Amino acid sequence: MKRLVKIGNFETGVKNNICDVKGVLVGNLTINNEYNKTGLTVVLPHNGNMFKEKVVSGSYVYNGFGKSIGLVQIEELGTIETPIVLTNTLNVGKVVDGLISYMLKDNPEIGVSTSTINSLVLECNDGSINQIQNRCINEEDVINTINNVKDDFEEGNIGAGTGMKCHGFTGGIGSSSRIVNINNKQYTIGVLVNSNFGSSNGKDLIFKGRALGELIKDYNLKQEEDKGSIIIIIGTDAPLDSRQLKRLARRAELGVGRTGSYGGNGSGDIIVAFSTENKVTHYENEPEEKITRFSDSFINPLFKATVDATEEAILNSMLHGKSTTSYNGNHYKSLIEYKSLYDDLLEK
Amino acid sequence: MKRLVKIGNFETGVKNNICDVKGVLVGNLTINNEYNKTGLTVVLPHNGNMFKEKVVSGSYVYNGFGKSIGLVQIEELGTIETPIVLTNTLNVGKVVDGLISYMLKDNPEIGVSTSTINSLVLECNDGSINQIQNRCINEEDVINTINNVKDDFEEGNIGAGTGMKCHGFTGGIGSSSRIVNINNKQYTIGVLVNSNFGSSNGKDLIFKGRALGELIKDYNLKQEEDKGSIIIIIGTDAPLDSRQLKRLARRAELGVGRTGSYGGNGSGDIIVAFSTENKVTHYENEPEEKITRFSDSFINPLFKATVDATEEAILNSMLHGKSTTSYNGNHYKSLIEYKSLYDDLLEK
Amino acid sequence: MKRLVKIGNFETGVKNNICDVKGVLVGNLTINNEYNKTGLTVVLPHNGNMFKEKVVSGSYVYNGFGKSIGLVQIEELGTIETPIVLTNTLNVGKVVDGLISYMLKDNPEIGVSTSTINSLVLECNDGSINQIQNRCINEEDVINTINNVKDDFEEGNIGAGTGMKCHGFTGGIGSSSRIVNINNKQYTIGVLVNSNFGSSNGKDLIFKGRALGELIKDYNLKQEEDKGSIIIIIGTDAPLDSRQLKRLARRAELGVGRTGSYGGNGSGDIIVAFSTENKVTHYENEPEEKITRFSDSFINPLFKATVDATEEAILNSMLHGKSTTSYNGNHYKSLIEYKSLYDDLLEK
Amino acid sequence: MKRLVKIGNFETGVKNNICDVKGVLVGNLTINNEYNKTGLTVVLPHNGNMFKEKVVSGSYVYNGFGKSIGLVQIEELGTIETPIVLTNTLNVGKVVDGLISYMLKDNPEIGVSTSTINSLVLECNDGSINQIQNRCINEEDVINTINNVKDDFEEGNIGAGTGMKCHGFTGGIGSSSRIVNINNKQYTIGVLVNSNFGSSNGKDLIFKGRALGELIKDYNLKQEEDKGSIIIIIGTDAPLDSRQLKRLARRAELGVGRTGSYGGNGSGDIIVAFSTENKVTHYENEPEEKITRFSDSFINPLFKATVDATEEAILNSMLHGKSTTSYNGNHYKSLIEYKSLYDDLLEK
Repeated sequence: MKRLVKIGNFETGVKNNICDVKGVLVGNLTINNEYNKTGLTVVLPHNGNMFKEKVVSGSYVYNGFGKSIGLVQIEELGTIETPIVLTNTLNVGKVVDGLISYMLKDNPEIGVSTSTINSLVLECNDGSINQIQNRCINEEDVINTINNVKDDFEEGNIGAGTGMKCHGFTGGIGSSSRIVNINNKQYTIGVLVNSNFGSSNGKDLIFKGRALGELIKDYNLKQEEDKGSIIIIIGTDAPLDSRQLKRLARRAELGVGRTGSYGGNGSGDIIVAFSTENKVTHYENEPEEKITRFSDSFINPLFKATVDATEEAILNSMLHGKSTTSYNGNHYKSLIEYKSLYDDLLEK
Repeated sequence: MKRLVKIGNFETGVKNNICDVKGVLVGNLTINNEYNKTGLTVVLPHNGNMFKEKVVSGSYVYNGFGKSIGLVQIEELGTIETPIVLTNTLNVGKVVDGLISYMLKDNPEIGVSTSTINSLVLECNDGSINQIQNRCINEEDVINTINNVKDDFEEGNIGAGTGMKCHGFTGGIGSSSRIVNINNKQYTIGVLVNSNFGSSNGKDLIFKGRALGELIKDYNLKQEEDKGSIIIIIGTDAPLDSRQLKRLARRAELGVGRTGSYGGNGSGDIIVAFSTENKVTHYENEPEEKITRFSDSFINPLFKATVDATEEAILNSMLHGKSTTSYNGNHYKSLIEYKSLYDDLLEK
Repeated sequence: MKRLVKIGNFETGVKNNICDVKGVLVGNLTINNEYNKTGLTVVLPHNGNMFKEKVVSGSYVYNGFGKSIGLVQIEELGTIETPIVLTNTLNVGKVVDGLISYMLKDNPEIGVSTSTINSLVLECNDGSINQIQNRCINEEDVINTINNVKDDFEEGNIGAGTGMKCHGFTGGIGSSSRIVNINNKQYTIGVLVNSNFGSSNGKDLIFKGRALGELIKDYNLKQEEDKGSIIIIIGTDAPLDSRQLKRLARRAELGVGRTGSYGGNGSGDIIVAFSTENKVTHYENEPEEKITRFSDSFINPLFKATVDATEEAILNSMLHGKSTTSYNGNHYKSLIEYKSLYDDLLEK
Repeated sequence: MKRLVKIGNFETGVKNNICDVKGVLVGNLTINNEYNKTGLTVVLPHNGNMFKEKVVSGSYVYNGFGKSIGLVQIEELGTIETPIVLTNTLNVGKVVDGLISYMLKDNPEIGVSTSTINSLVLECNDGSINQIQNRCINEEDVINTINNVKDDFEEGNIGAGTGMKCHGFTGGIGSSSRIVNINNKQYTIGVLVNSNFGSSNGKDLIFKGRALGELIKDYNLKQEEDKGSIIIIIGTDAPLDSRQLKRLARRAELGVGRTGSYGGNGSGDIIVAFSTENKVTHYENEPEEKITRFSDSFINPLFKATVDATEEAILNSMLHGKSTTSYNGNHYKSLIEYKSLYDDLLEK
């Protein structure tokens, strides 16, 4: 895929998205009608049974002004055991319920002969564009979206990002990846964001170091109340443990900052990182098993790749956006309409 | 109300339950049929509009093996803005959705002209007794239960506690309160638990210091997999801030420990504390306001009262239990059937 | 060694102290003169070079009213890289400096060609008994104590525990161990405490479930201000990672609670856990290595053993105490003087 | 004072440093001889007795690869009770001891009739430039530096920053302030950094959005092992509580990120924020008192001011630097030598 903007010096993977991490799959459901501009984005860390083969995980809450579910158990146990589902804030209940239905189908013993299930559902508020009180996503939508994940996907204001705005422009789903060589071994970092932060008049936007927001004089002069948030999913094939994945997650926020965020009060910034290595079996027969440990002494390139890929993923979410009109008639432009202000910074 | 067992030396409030904290209301919905033994318990910190008048809050996750929602924002903002709803693990999605419906009715501006809502729904797994996959609680149940809160309530295996077991006996809803005098001023601490922890054969149970579990030889010899958890709600009229309420919440776990818990791997132990003082208005006109600050130098009696009331609330949850039969035919006794082993320790 | 009091049903190791964990060594320096009753206690996780071979570690701050140093880096990196040194509060500076001197001797490259060193020094306030402002421990004391660690040690008010009081009686160093069988493999848990908490009139003391404090009517009626704290060190040969060791550390507080603590405001309760397995090499040549992972599904016996051993270690710290007189003439009894009140609960 | 580089759009205070926050004082001790290039920097939140009048505080550990002391108690109690002292890593022990001596002089009851003292000493590793093993700072240095604080100060590689390097150039002490108007009331934010992070070849440096590091081809081509860290102190007269100050502290890291940091593994990034309002008295007579609470709904300008001031403080630390030669003969340039690469971005 053609790269739009180059952040940092690492190579990207072939697709420059989170599916460059082997086994990771993504699905989108886009709802775009007169009243509702919203949807679902699913990230599947692997294509097997997530409950029976959990992935090691760490999360980081930069700003907890958010309504996500599932983070408490990740902190305690360091694993993810369901598909990761992104949606809007008021749909969290319905999506959790749909995700439980999906999990029960393949794992009928949940809550019967074994433990229950920790749904991981992450949200942003798309209420500026989407009539959010409708809660228009149902159980079937969740199941279908999970069942239709693929190893590549579109970006921009689609899926869970359909009604998102970033720095006042259309935001939503963006992704980027990095290939890192450490001692002659190659690791992949993939980042997927649902971007929904920043002032509605765009004034704080930084584009590849340029204070672009200061150049945009004519946009959305009547600033709305901040209704923000960003969700960031990081996947990697480096065999990091939950402590290290939490360190990785924390770095992603620096990429958010480089696009102009100052961590606004109302912006729930939540980051979840997982490794596709060292999976954890639900039904373990033995207390001990051999796994691979990654040394913190070699972790710096993974940190830097995460910061770079996060910044690029956010810009990608905007550069793939299409202008849209909210349910109540407000028009939100795509950043592309201001291309002349940053054209020289794009890859040709 | 007659006190069953006296833990510590503080006086209790008139009702010896969380409703002794002025303004706090509780409601229960009990579902008890052939397949489903489950329900809802609602704690309302005050009788006004919780979204417009939030209560200061702190929470503490002793063991994050749990699927509750709403804790992330409490940690960040230190407030609760909905009724607190307890239910079973697989019903969390449906209950969140019902709680959102309830909030939207009184606050139609949510997600439209103002921010969204942080649902606080806490869960335990009642899958040993209740056919939990049914998810039999719906939106109307949530709304009705909130609308029917009162200033007193029953305890035992009712409401969200209907299908709970504690140390292998019927557990569930228990409560206790304390009146604390500090410098001639009187403060109230109220604790409500949904108890669902401990080994299924009761062997770890400690009753007022007595290792009761070791005296029970004939019960549930075939131990089930641990499917535990305890939810603890602490209310107080002491004007504590979120940091101090978190300190209070942390102390509650010592009360759990005194009844024999060792914090089992699968037992999600989650504690939420709130103060009815210094409420936070949603629509604030000014950045500054005067509030009352409580000094940590005087906090010790509140800590001790919390530990004592938590221990007593757990014992109360068992002492009010009625024996029950699970959907799949297993019989769970009430601890009362073993009264001869602890009769001398009860209040007369 | 003869066991004094039996808590729980696991077997102890041969010595019933933390040195039952293979490789762990302990050293004590006791200063006991007219003005100063204080000292050092050193726990060495292994007998090699701690900087070059770090141990995996997790810590838990139950109550952060404490002045310890080294915990921040344990949280980030999950390792300990120096001997663990316990001392009194005002001596922390001098002891850190002495510990740095010790480390530089064996590792002259520290701060020159490689990183610096994270000193782990944990403290309790012995100012009721010891003239703490003297800060009478110096560099040489630290180095000598580390150089004289052994695989067995005395308990009671010796070493860093010389001036400690627990529930108003002499407290200080206590230890206990447990042998746990999991799937036919044997693991050892060892706990060492420096106990210094509880009311000065003993009224909250619980001894093996008995509310002993309520039976003690004649002791220390004029209660001093609470000047508490407890430090707990947990060692194990189970191959736990830092997340799991933190879980273990959190359980230890339940053992503290069972002896009557309610987590008093002024009592800094800090717990550090380490594993002797899966050591981390300072100079790593490769980013990846094979290690053993322990499954959380099998962790419950280790949790329970930790709670039991902590409770027993605290009681041991009191049962080994000798009465003492503070620098300003106050007399502190050993709990042994009240043996008649708990004699029936002791091992014979 | 002349402003060197303008970050963001808020006004600065008169001095453009942390002393613009009323009452805040700063002192520096610079040691600069053949072997030692190190020192002390003291920030005094107010000029009274810090033990008797504590300031409300919150801290945030972005990267815990650090050896600071005092943070655990700030997290628990939300107060600072000593001067804040910055120094080098191996001197922490000696400085803690000196700080205790200073505190005992004015408060002879510490550890005798009242509690002990929580020393707040923060460190960076200056071992590339300074012969750090010498630990050349003593008790008298600490006391004298505290006694000589003033309401203005020099910046650059002086005080605790004498041996620091940032992005390979001389770093150290930098500061900046912001005046924020909220509802017609004026608040001040002051930031002081000790900058010591970044690659030794400068390649990651971002200067006001420009990827300056990529333009510097000829500097320090043989990269040293990363020996980093940054300490950030934030003062404000906004009446924030400890939870809010922690939120503020977390935002500062975004300012670090904007100068090119990706949070390197070895860089201990630690931020401490305090408010000069709502001071906490050590000897409180009553459990309750009236204070001012600041609403999170109005906090955004304080967040943004913190990010901007942190970025500017870091650049200031470099723009005030003088080239230096390490004890072992390595030359470190001031960034000023590359002024032509960023001259157009400076204030004229």
